[in-house]
Amino acid sequence: MLIGKVVGSVVSTRKNEKLVGSKFMIIETQAETGSFKRIVAVDNVGAGIGEMVLVATGSAARIGCDKECAPIDAAIVGIIDSGTGIEIIKD
Amino acid sequence: MLIGKVVGSVVSTRKNEKLVGSKFMIIETQAETGSFKRIVAVDNVGAGIGEMVLVATGSAARIGCDKECAPIDAAIVGIIDSGTGIEIIKD
Amino acid sequence: MLIGKVVGSVVSTRKNEKLVGSKFMIIETQAETGSFKRIVAVDNVGAGIGEMVLVATGSAARIGCDKECAPIDAAIVGIIDSGTGIEIIKD
Amino acid sequence: MLIGKVVGSVVSTRKNEKLVGSKFMIIETQAETGSFKRIVAVDNVGAGIGEMVLVATGSAARIGCDKECAPIDAAIVGIIDSGTGIEIIKD
Amino acid sequence: MLIGKVVGSVVSTRKNEKLVGSKFMIIETQAETGSFKRIVAVDNVGAGIGEMVLVATGSAARIGCDKECAPIDAAIVGIIDSGTGIEIIKD
Repeated sequence: MLIGKVVGSVVSTRKNEKLVGSKFMIIETQAETGSFKRIVAVDNVGAGIGEMVLVATGSAARIGCDKECAPIDAAIVGIIDSGTGIEIIKD
Repeated sequence: MLIGKVVGSVVSTRKNEKLVGSKFMIIETQAETGSFKRIVAVDNVGAGIGEMVLVATGSAARIGCDKECAPIDAAIVGIIDSGTGIEIIKD
Repeated sequence: MLIGKVVGSVVSTRKNEKLVGSKFMIIETQAETGSFKRIVAVDNVGAGIGEMVLVATGSAARIGCDKECAPIDAAIVGIIDSGTGIEIIKD
Repeated sequence: MLIGKVVGSVVSTRKNEKLVGSKFMIIETQAETGSFKRIVAVDNVGAGIGEMVLVATGSAARIGCDKECAPIDAAIVGIIDSGTGIEIIKD
Repeated sequence: MLIGKVVGSVVSTRKNEKLVGSKFMIIETQAETGSFKRIVAVDNVGAGIGEMVLVATGSAARIGCDKECAPIDAAIVGIIDSGTGIEIIKD
């Protein structure tokens, strides 16, 4: 899973019908040393802006999230309370 | 999902027969800080050039899009109306 | 899908038996701004060296290509006739 | 699989119910020459901080790990005893 | 598939039981222009150190390799005899 920070959200009216009702959050995650990228993940755990989260990508984003039939490739699956070694991303 | 901007389209006459009828759009998306890449996504929502879109990649591009049997690994699944935190990509 | 240019081919005598009869082409594709990488894709549409092609990656490379049981993760699924927005990769 | 070093761990109370009981370790792995990135992998083999490990990503992280129904995209599947050619990552 | 060079091997005693008997080789492959990364692939074709190989990644690494139930995401599926366009990686 990726470690990321919730930095925003997206509104999409015209979208695939299987995505209706999904909440799209923008996640900033580390691409590599000193570099970041932003992806959009569906929120399944009620994460808020500014929180550090675990993001499952690929087919994992649909498994166990009751979204097996939706075109989703990234999902927030946990909110990080604390951790050692996450400083690089947190800062 | 990736946030991207529709920047062009592609015409392909000689192609896999399962792709006949698909509309191929070129999407510019952020690779990492200050860097971009272009991919081709099948359009399922009627996106036009210049619009900001959500792109599902991998197996997600075929699920819920009635394209389960086509060799597709990227699909436009939503048009972005507005959002907070998408400035990096929009600019 | 990725946009790429066919820049070469590969001969492999000792290989997985499910790959016997496959034609392996080397594709140059854009990794990110100003940077490229080369991958090997199985050719399903008769592409020649120098042509611009659409490459499906991941499980998409096996679906709809009658290669569901072969260890293939990239396939040429279309030859690009023309397009707007492909200049970066073409040059 | 990726070669990585276990550099930390993550605590997440509010998470997908299929992840309850999983141990989340932070892995530092090589992104490319001279550059690294950190991902979170579920530990299936009892790895400790500082150990070099093999990490399976994508659907492989759920297969053979009795986690087929959980939203997991990275798992530690082996602890590295020794090897030739791992210096770049170890240092 | 990726083109890579076998540059080493890895010994792992404590590992997922589905991996027992697998041979883990370290492959150096091109990440992008002028940059490389190392991954670990299971060897199915008897490749030796120094040889140029084709590596299948993702679910392709398990298909057609009699490893459908093991947590494997990269496999050597061919040894390259010769090719045009592989100079960048070979050098």
